[in-house]
Amino acid sequence: MAGQIVYKIATLGSHSALQILKGAKDEGFKTLCIATSDRISLYSRFKFIDKILEIETFSDFPKIQKKLIAEKAIIIPHGSFVAYLGIDENKKMTVLYFGNKKVLDWESDRLKQREWMEKAGVPVPKKFTDASQIDRPVIVKSYGAAGGHGYFFAKNKREFAIRMKNFKAKKYLIQEYVIGVPLYIHYFYSPISRKLEILSIDKRYETNVDSLGRIPSQNQQGLGIEPSFVVVGNIPLTLRESLLAEAFEMGERVVATSKKLMDGGIWGPFCLETIITPEQKFSIIEISCRIVAGTNLYVSGSPYSVLYYDREVSTGRRIAMEIKEAIKKGKLKKILN
Amino acid sequence: MAGQIVYKIATLGSHSALQILKGAKDEGFKTLCIATSDRISLYSRFKFIDKILEIETFSDFPKIQKKLIAEKAIIIPHGSFVAYLGIDENKKMTVLYFGNKKVLDWESDRLKQREWMEKAGVPVPKKFTDASQIDRPVIVKSYGAAGGHGYFFAKNKREFAIRMKNFKAKKYLIQEYVIGVPLYIHYFYSPISRKLEILSIDKRYETNVDSLGRIPSQNQQGLGIEPSFVVVGNIPLTLRESLLAEAFEMGERVVATSKKLMDGGIWGPFCLETIITPEQKFSIIEISCRIVAGTNLYVSGSPYSVLYYDREVSTGRRIAMEIKEAIKKGKLKKILN
Amino acid sequence: MAGQIVYKIATLGSHSALQILKGAKDEGFKTLCIATSDRISLYSRFKFIDKILEIETFSDFPKIQKKLIAEKAIIIPHGSFVAYLGIDENKKMTVLYFGNKKVLDWESDRLKQREWMEKAGVPVPKKFTDASQIDRPVIVKSYGAAGGHGYFFAKNKREFAIRMKNFKAKKYLIQEYVIGVPLYIHYFYSPISRKLEILSIDKRYETNVDSLGRIPSQNQQGLGIEPSFVVVGNIPLTLRESLLAEAFEMGERVVATSKKLMDGGIWGPFCLETIITPEQKFSIIEISCRIVAGTNLYVSGSPYSVLYYDREVSTGRRIAMEIKEAIKKGKLKKILN
Repeated sequence: MAGQIVYKIATLGSHSALQILKGAKDEGFKTLCIATSDRISLYSRFKFIDKILEIETFSDFPKIQKKLIAEKAIIIPHGSFVAYLGIDENKKMTVLYFGNKKVLDWESDRLKQREWMEKAGVPVPKKFTDASQIDRPVIVKSYGAAGGHGYFFAKNKREFAIRMKNFKAKKYLIQEYVIGVPLYIHYFYSPISRKLEILSIDKRYETNVDSLGRIPSQNQQGLGIEPSFVVVGNIPLTLRESLLAEAFEMGERVVATSKKLMDGGIWGPFCLETIITPEQKFSIIEISCRIVAGTNLYVSGSPYSVLYYDREVSTGRRIAMEIKEAIKKGKLKKILN
Repeated sequence: MAGQIVYKIATLGSHSALQILKGAKDEGFKTLCIATSDRISLYSRFKFIDKILEIETFSDFPKIQKKLIAEKAIIIPHGSFVAYLGIDENKKMTVLYFGNKKVLDWESDRLKQREWMEKAGVPVPKKFTDASQIDRPVIVKSYGAAGGHGYFFAKNKREFAIRMKNFKAKKYLIQEYVIGVPLYIHYFYSPISRKLEILSIDKRYETNVDSLGRIPSQNQQGLGIEPSFVVVGNIPLTLRESLLAEAFEMGERVVATSKKLMDGGIWGPFCLETIITPEQKFSIIEISCRIVAGTNLYVSGSPYSVLYYDREVSTGRRIAMEIKEAIKKGKLKKILN
Repeated sequence: MAGQIVYKIATLGSHSALQILKGAKDEGFKTLCIATSDRISLYSRFKFIDKILEIETFSDFPKIQKKLIAEKAIIIPHGSFVAYLGIDENKKMTVLYFGNKKVLDWESDRLKQREWMEKAGVPVPKKFTDASQIDRPVIVKSYGAAGGHGYFFAKNKREFAIRMKNFKAKKYLIQEYVIGVPLYIHYFYSPISRKLEILSIDKRYETNVDSLGRIPSQNQQGLGIEPSFVVVGNIPLTLRESLLAEAFEMGERVVATSKKLMDGGIWGPFCLETIITPEQKFSIIEISCRIVAGTNLYVSGSPYSVLYYDREVSTGRRIAMEIKEAIKKGKLKKILN
């Protein structure tokens, strides 16, 4: 396709770049990786990356933007874009950008995010607006928490007061600590076909919290370990099929509501981070409005993507497929910002 | 194949229906999903499902049986068949049914199930026929437990007595609580080739018990959480290769013994639910005599199925392969009830 | 290829033999499995195994060596080779052997292994040469620990003293107990292309330690369970992409240092067993200088191997690919001992 050859798929060298660029290559795009010097060696190892642009720090991104525009690059944002560039830099980008930037404000503000979820009729944990109301275990999250930092857990009001003393965040959310198992659902919404897919599911692998259970209770007490929730990997999961209908419907309500709240709504990949209780109820802890790292488990497809496609479709590849389809139908503007 | 075109593969829309129908389609069958109204939207998403028959509740299954017979449907039972229809409705079905219905009585009665396992020389946890004998931690299971409900754990005789007060089941089994890791082995026995395969392995993802370890011991105590074992997902596993010989042999003894105990014995997919102790000994907690949800992890094949087949074979697809082979060899009656 | 047809790929029937022989077959080699009588039934099940040589016990290996040499077998060593034959028998083998035997002495001696890692600039846990220095939780490992045996954990100096009384090992290493999550990185170094690949990642599934977290803290205390670390399976994982650069670089330094310490250095598959701390720092607990059982998860490829190869490449298959390439380039001697 002549149209396709013109564009290159580009992203920052981090997070899920390998999957994004591999998927782009598999769909016939030229690929471009913007990497800091310490990552050049990593991304040079892979043949599906056609070109690496070096920058000193991720915050130097604006400096190479002209070059990217000249290359006809389409940027695929992932978790590192907001973490390292901030929302404003993302919004200011003039290079072609996959996804709706208007979503960024709704995602980054925990109160607006709750409003979105609540309007979508998606179950969220009880919120405490005042510490004096705390009547059960809570988790406290700073507004701009990224990658597992900026959380703490408190069993009750008293523990909350003690721990607040060491908590640096000024803005934070006090939420009920929902007891159940975590499960992350990776969605993809196509504004071209107007269909929502569940592409894969994972749970995070968090240090040190996922090793706590390996320390017998009597030993834990002597060690006085504080749990931390730093994500260092991912573990594949499937969901009980009887909960899958609800998982789809929650995703569709999130998409439908986004169209009302923000011009154009959300499209492309997003993730609902859920806790499932013993009553088999979902509780939505957070939404990530882009590709999440848990999809890295499924570079050659997942038990869900195989239900739609005969090819080995990762979320990264699904993005490239959407762009290809948009080019083919002359609707590229519809999916870029 | 003319013979094959005649039959359709059908199942209830739940549990492992997606995998079963995808596998059937991949083997060239027409597919049919019987779904309740709340699930129509789920099963309508997938192109490999040729037809959806709506019923109000699963218990209305008998009402559409004539239609299924007219469609030349072959029913593939899964976990929801016994859970929602009960054993009697399963036995009364007149539509073509994959698997041996005589197995149902042996599986559903926990005492008969133990007898089967013991006769097969398969290790089972110690049983306590009288509460006064309890001399170690025990797990108490109601006879008809399904999907993780109807269990409780007691550290000793005293705790047993306390917890029995809130336990509703009238018939129950008191078993030694075996300390070790759970592992579920997915077998497939072909009555055509007379061969047993291990197709895949998983562990269940249970709420809330699989999140307990993430709560530090000192916090757990304040929370007073009761563990529950509700299965909401599955996690992939492989087994140490030195234990694989025994896993095959246990499966084969279970099959051989079933031929003595029930006319025709067991065939098709079944699962041994094991605990492996630090001495590397299996302890068999339960047998499921049909496809289990853990196989949903392996829609595009597993690290085991790839050892037999060049195609991507799930348990669902393996069932369709068996039916196809039976049609080809004129042995369809041998595998249907 | 005429050259290839001459050689057969052979291994002991255990550990990762299925994967090794499947991979060899997929690359066009004839395959040979040396199995004890209790395993004949297991390995007879798979068509990709061309021939099974029975031996009474693994220690009878030398008795069939002439036969193997006559068959032009290339032995692929795995974990059972050192565990069952010992280092000396491995070194004495005269049959063609994949990998550098000089590595065995460096791997088997925990002090030399530490020296290797330290010289490679790879982070290792703090070591205590004298019990009186213990000022934090420690893990004590016998020198010849295999498959999860020969470990114990102590919270402090006092607990160390108590537990030493029941510890049988004469030579042991006292290491800081690093609190974080375990993660095993499966590398492959090609001496032909001089490139290092990360082929896959897993975590072990250990009994009983991986079930401890499922027992509520209040129940654990009554049970008085001692944690054990016996590996009975493996669980798939991916690593946070931002840690992948470091994972590659650690592997490369380990390879480069090995070339200085031992003639020829390490080649083929090896594994770094890491703990990742909440500060996102790796701590290397051990190196395994051959294929590890965690690769059994990825018989049909992994989320990493798919980044290099369009085929479904397991570590077992990667070994066969290397041998094939060496034959093609007339460099077979370079990779065999």
